[in-house]
Amino acid sequence: MTSGSVLRRCFHNPGRVTIISTIRGKRPYYNKSPTTFKSELFCPFCPGNEKYTPPATLALHISTNGKYVFFSEKESGEISTWVVRVFPNKYPALAPKLNINLAYGYHEVLVETRIHNEEKYLKDPRNVYFALKTLKERIKRILEDPKIKHVIVIKNKGVRAGASITHPHLQIFANTFIPPEIGNEIFGFKRFFEENSECPLCYLLSTYRELIYYSNESFASLIAYAPRVPYETYIVPFKHTFSFLNISDNEMYDLSTTLSRTLLTLKKVLGDFDYNLWFHTIYDSSLSFYHWHIEILPLTTTWGGYEKGAGVYIVDKFPENVASELRNAISEEK
Amino acid sequence: MTSGSVLRRCFHNPGRVTIISTIRGKRPYYNKSPTTFKSELFCPFCPGNEKYTPPATLALHISTNGKYVFFSEKESGEISTWVVRVFPNKYPALAPKLNINLAYGYHEVLVETRIHNEEKYLKDPRNVYFALKTLKERIKRILEDPKIKHVIVIKNKGVRAGASITHPHLQIFANTFIPPEIGNEIFGFKRFFEENSECPLCYLLSTYRELIYYSNESFASLIAYAPRVPYETYIVPFKHTFSFLNISDNEMYDLSTTLSRTLLTLKKVLGDFDYNLWFHTIYDSSLSFYHWHIEILPLTTTWGGYEKGAGVYIVDKFPENVASELRNAISEEK
Repeated sequence: MTSGSVLRRCFHNPGRVTIISTIRGKRPYYNKSPTTFKSELFCPFCPGNEKYTPPATLALHISTNGKYVFFSEKESGEISTWVVRVFPNKYPALAPKLNINLAYGYHEVLVETRIHNEEKYLKDPRNVYFALKTLKERIKRILEDPKIKHVIVIKNKGVRAGASITHPHLQIFANTFIPPEIGNEIFGFKRFFEENSECPLCYLLSTYRELIYYSNESFASLIAYAPRVPYETYIVPFKHTFSFLNISDNEMYDLSTTLSRTLLTLKKVLGDFDYNLWFHTIYDSSLSFYHWHIEILPLTTTWGGYEKGAGVYIVDKFPENVASELRNAISEEK
Repeated sequence: MTSGSVLRRCFHNPGRVTIISTIRGKRPYYNKSPTTFKSELFCPFCPGNEKYTPPATLALHISTNGKYVFFSEKESGEISTWVVRVFPNKYPALAPKLNINLAYGYHEVLVETRIHNEEKYLKDPRNVYFALKTLKERIKRILEDPKIKHVIVIKNKGVRAGASITHPHLQIFANTFIPPEIGNEIFGFKRFFEENSECPLCYLLSTYRELIYYSNESFASLIAYAPRVPYETYIVPFKHTFSFLNISDNEMYDLSTTLSRTLLTLKKVLGDFDYNLWFHTIYDSSLSFYHWHIEILPLTTTWGGYEKGAGVYIVDKFPENVASELRNAISEEK
């Protein structure tokens, strides 16, 4: 089906309904906010400007013999050759201290690379690999704090995504509670499994292959079955496991390639685009029905009251057509 | 408490957690997208341009002796003296026809007034009264269709809110299912009632009076206890009832005054601002624990991945302080 309108309910998150309506795409007004920043004269995340951010809680250094070394600047002092750098957010929403007037938790920034330009950074998947390796290590260490129940990792790219700095960086939020959206998914995965004796994401991967637009041995990139924006993408490991922390080093490399290819392909099709990205993972092995994944929301449309107030999302393209468009963009490169 | 950071969970919607963090307000970058439309030479909702929109399913006419007359343009033809006009969306996401390639439902536009400028329109609450009276009538008639399970009414104002036309108008979405956000609230109201033998909104009105910034005999305007944006406002009837359709004509007039005063006060404090607004109401008397209300989201901040991917909202002002700021703005007028 390539035109008209249908209703779809997300398999793994009961809080979402999508109406696919190709007629809506014909509306005369289509507003895009600018994605440029007013002042880009100074970047606090670029090498040389470390003093403008707090000391790193974790940084990755690669020694001359190729060995990965993790260090904290509080203990080791600054090492100017860092490859990836993690530090507390200068304007935190949470802090790992009791008795002060701030909600307990961790709110950190992970500078993914020394390279200021995202496209340049993405072109070599090894850069992404270094960032992910450091991310995994930092999450592990934060989880040693028994007060922390969950860690969510997000990325905001561009003004429309809520970003204030362009240099490639992730944000880490470690909470003393399970965030509502993770709770919704735990509920959704559990119910789908009880009703179908199968994981909803495993089902999606095996049954809706036409939604997949990139894959390698370990991961697939696909357009969501019930997307909230036309190009909403999931990156899903083929191997069912509840946690990002469970992936092997080989899988980590495949994930780096997947992330790099996915974002560059979207950029090729959409031009410069703003996006939100997050890791949906849990850390509790008793909830092994959960299937961890990454969600990417390219912000090409604006949500209105129906989306926010009803939880019903209107998109103007069929997910199967979007996936096909992206597959074509990839095959043209070969 | 006026500084620092605290965590709050919404009483009636379990899908929402807010972190109030006054430190976040000190971030150096604060981006506001423009709210102006490129071309405003022609307005299809202004009187005289009726032929550019579909025939009205319902319109309000006030006869020379002051009587309210509802008519449909399909039956009565066009009456150029309409006061409020409702018609199917030209680019619908839903349509009330079977056997065509469109999800079943109603997607209509309610032009609230002949007046193009919102501020002018709001300054006389009678204008709002006419719009609400017509809205109530149209919802009633749509609900005569047995396939319709729920009707949600929304308003998008400005580019950031997803609007494409500035002339004051509401949108009506009638669905064959209960929208997810309404489902979340039904669950939340029920649970709060079971645990506390009280309605969460009645509790809020009686216990958190410092959040109220405007009230009259029938309605209160208050800042949300766990807001998703700093100025998030609820308009709540003092009388507990599950449905907007249950309000009397007197209450309708009080609601018009409340809406008018609330939006004009927010405008006084925020300047020109974009917003989403929706009616959260149900129509099923067996769920009488529900308390209908209006929610207004002034879009002064941009949601990022934490808000969208975790369901955790960071605001940089204490709701009690925001309410006090708005109370002051109102009292200055007297």
